[in-house]
Amino acid sequence: MAGANVVLLDFWPSSYGMRVKIALAEKGISYDCKQEDFGAKSSLLLEMNPVHKMIPVLIHNAKPICESLNIVQYIDEAWNHKPSLLPSDPYKRSQARFWGDYIDKNVYNSIKRIWTGKGDQEECKKQFIECLKTLKDELGDKPYFGGEEFGYVDVALVPFTSWFYTVETCGKLSIDEECPKLVAWVKRCMQKESVATALPHPHRIYAFALQYKQTHGVE
Amino acid sequence: MAGANVVLLDFWPSSYGMRVKIALAEKGISYDCKQEDFGAKSSLLLEMNPVHKMIPVLIHNAKPICESLNIVQYIDEAWNHKPSLLPSDPYKRSQARFWGDYIDKNVYNSIKRIWTGKGDQEECKKQFIECLKTLKDELGDKPYFGGEEFGYVDVALVPFTSWFYTVETCGKLSIDEECPKLVAWVKRCMQKESVATALPHPHRIYAFALQYKQTHGVE
Repeated sequence: MAGANVVLLDFWPSSYGMRVKIALAEKGISYDCKQEDFGAKSSLLLEMNPVHKMIPVLIHNAKPICESLNIVQYIDEAWNHKPSLLPSDPYKRSQARFWGDYIDKNVYNSIKRIWTGKGDQEECKKQFIECLKTLKDELGDKPYFGGEEFGYVDVALVPFTSWFYTVETCGKLSIDEECPKLVAWVKRCMQKESVATALPHPHRIYAFALQYKQTHGVE
Repeated sequence: MAGANVVLLDFWPSSYGMRVKIALAEKGISYDCKQEDFGAKSSLLLEMNPVHKMIPVLIHNAKPICESLNIVQYIDEAWNHKPSLLPSDPYKRSQARFWGDYIDKNVYNSIKRIWTGKGDQEECKKQFIECLKTLKDELGDKPYFGGEEFGYVDVALVPFTSWFYTVETCGKLSIDEECPKLVAWVKRCMQKESVATALPHPHRIYAFALQYKQTHGVE
């Protein structure tokens, strides 16, 4: 599929950017990926996302779409061939959006507080594990969150697992011990080329986190 | 339209609950509305929204849908007759969802900080006015956020305007002076029966706010 009219403004360690890359790969859409420098945001980013000035931004036919889960839904609707990321049944769609929203409200902050060491660490770790267990309960015995097929909630969550090694190392905890079923789901997702290609190696994320902490004076 | 199978768990001053009431009224769906007592949440609420334990919850055919904008989208998809709340074009849908998300992230907190008097009040008021001006710019000269027809973004925002009198009184500011075009839009929306019926009188909200502050020891 021609991709000259599809551009992604990205920053490689961002789990939000990874969501968009997975969705584009699932739909077989080729695109140009431009890496943003957070020290000096490009004029294109400021023009395309004047409200939040944040990546990811998908630019399709010169028009911007912002906010990662909004972009994933856009991709599903604008390229409405299979595989569908959201189910077609309205109730199942509402459940998928509910869990996408839950992930947005809980996962990033928990992860960042642990690897930066900010806040009461025991409390942060407890909240993070509780959040993972809530997600594990929702997964249940299904292969993917939506059921038999990889879909929207998987796209929403799986990018954050590239940060698990960093969280485990900085926070001295074992996600595998706490939530083995969730770790099995991660491995299942990683069998998909769309996911394996979009997620950076966990060690690369860890190196980024260490450098970030050094630059920002975080112990 | 029969409504015995549609139940809304609500708390009347909640702008989130008002969103659902407007959407249901726009679609002409009758429903039972159960008021929750926040001092003693009902077992039905805890059962239907075990993750957040918050209203609004829409129960349709005994199945719960949570989170207000998710519910509004569900209503639009499950009862897919006119009027549509979201546009059909994928790009326009993405823009509507973007602004719904912007409202969710910015408006409630600004309003609450002002009427409770918590935080640096000058900074809170500045942020609130900036947020309203951003929304006013998005509205532009259109009658409604989506264009000619009342829709998703209007549903997302207009309930918060029932709190404007409380914000103006507690914060000693005039929204009409700051954003006359937005106030004109509020008046336009209030011409719609769906909105006028769903929004409590501003004085009733103000009385609730005063009582809340007294109960919670907020000056």
